[in-house]
Amino acid sequence: MSLPSGYSIRELKASDHTNGILDVLSGLTTVGTVTANAFESIFKQWSTLKLSNGSNVYNPLVIVDSNGKVVATGMVFIEEKLIHSGGLVGHIEDIAVDSSQQGKSLGKFLIKELSLIAKRSGAYKVILDCSESNVKFYEKCGYKEAGVEMQIRY
Amino acid sequence: MSLPSGYSIRELKASDHTNGILDVLSGLTTVGTVTANAFESIFKQWSTLKLSNGSNVYNPLVIVDSNGKVVATGMVFIEEKLIHSGGLVGHIEDIAVDSSQQGKSLGKFLIKELSLIAKRSGAYKVILDCSESNVKFYEKCGYKEAGVEMQIRY
Ligand SMILES: CC(=O)N[C@@H]1[C@@H](O)[C@H](O)[C@@H](COP(=O)(O)O)O[C@@H]1O
Ligand SMILES: CC(=O)N[C@@H]1[C@@H](O)[C@H](O)[C@@H](COP(=O)(O)O)O[C@@H]1O
Repeated sequence: MSLPSGYSIRELKASDHTNGILDVLSGLTTVGTVTANAFESIFKQWSTLKLSNGSNVYNPLVIVDSNGKVVATGMVFIEEKLIHSGGLVGHIEDIAVDSSQQGKSLGKFLIKELSLIAKRSGAYKVILDCSESNVKFYEKCGYKEAGVEMQIRY
Repeated sequence: MSLPSGYSIRELKASDHTNGILDVLSGLTTVGTVTANAFESIFKQWSTLKLSNGSNVYNPLVIVDSNGKVVATGMVFIEEKLIHSGGLVGHIEDIAVDSSQQGKSLGKFLIKELSLIAKRSGAYKVILDCSESNVKFYEKCGYKEAGVEMQIRY
């Protein structure tokens, strides 16, 4: 599978604050206030954290259109465990596709790329949590139902 | 709520490899091979990673009996996000209670402590994934169903 002509996928950059990523994320949930400074400091923090094997803990990606505008984003961060002989697990988080970009399979492309990053880092599995209404989409990406997400909010 | 007399809860230590934690984890899933060296290197890696606010990313706890033997374990690691104004999310992972220790509410105590660590670190929510059969237990700990866990395995 490939991206529509003019679109490309790349790692998030510290300068992406002005490229529309926060607008895209606001389609997923509450974004709140993220100043350019805050954005850069979170980006820097993400870039700093490494696994024992040297891979990045946080792997945020963006899909941009021909004008460099962010139209989709998502990330996978990698957890290091004791179980599974010191196994690694990828967690896919904060998947958002601009609402004007439906039908282009951008979400599916993103999930494939993020899963591959985790696999290459050595993960024995990748997991994510979604609403009942998104189960079919993730099944099309090769994912299977595995359990129930529970939460407590503060 | 409190622990039964003789039991105590504390942070995991590098020397806990010999205290039975791997036996306890084998009640949860495949542990595989974790040598003393591998254990120490994972422990060291966990201790190294810090959030922007200086808190620990990984927070593994153990409950030990009066002989110092590990009878329950679990951890919460903290994810740093862009959404929710650069919000933090706690992920509770690898909860295991020795099968001979049922009925002492050790699991509930552990979940309360791990949730509190995440709250104190500044998390706006804590999430975890479990099987359908454990939903009732986590509800007793104050958690609510929030979504579906999806996975892909390699
Ligand atoms: C696969 C995927 O993108 N899942 C997202 C999760 O990553 C995101 O953090 C959460 C935000 O919800 P919240 O605003 O209630 O925390 O929504 C969904 O569960
Ligand atoms: C709350 C809790 O403890 N959930 C655990 C998870 O932390 C653990 O990593 C997984 C192992 O399963 P696996 O061996 O299939 O990866 O089982 C459960 O989902």
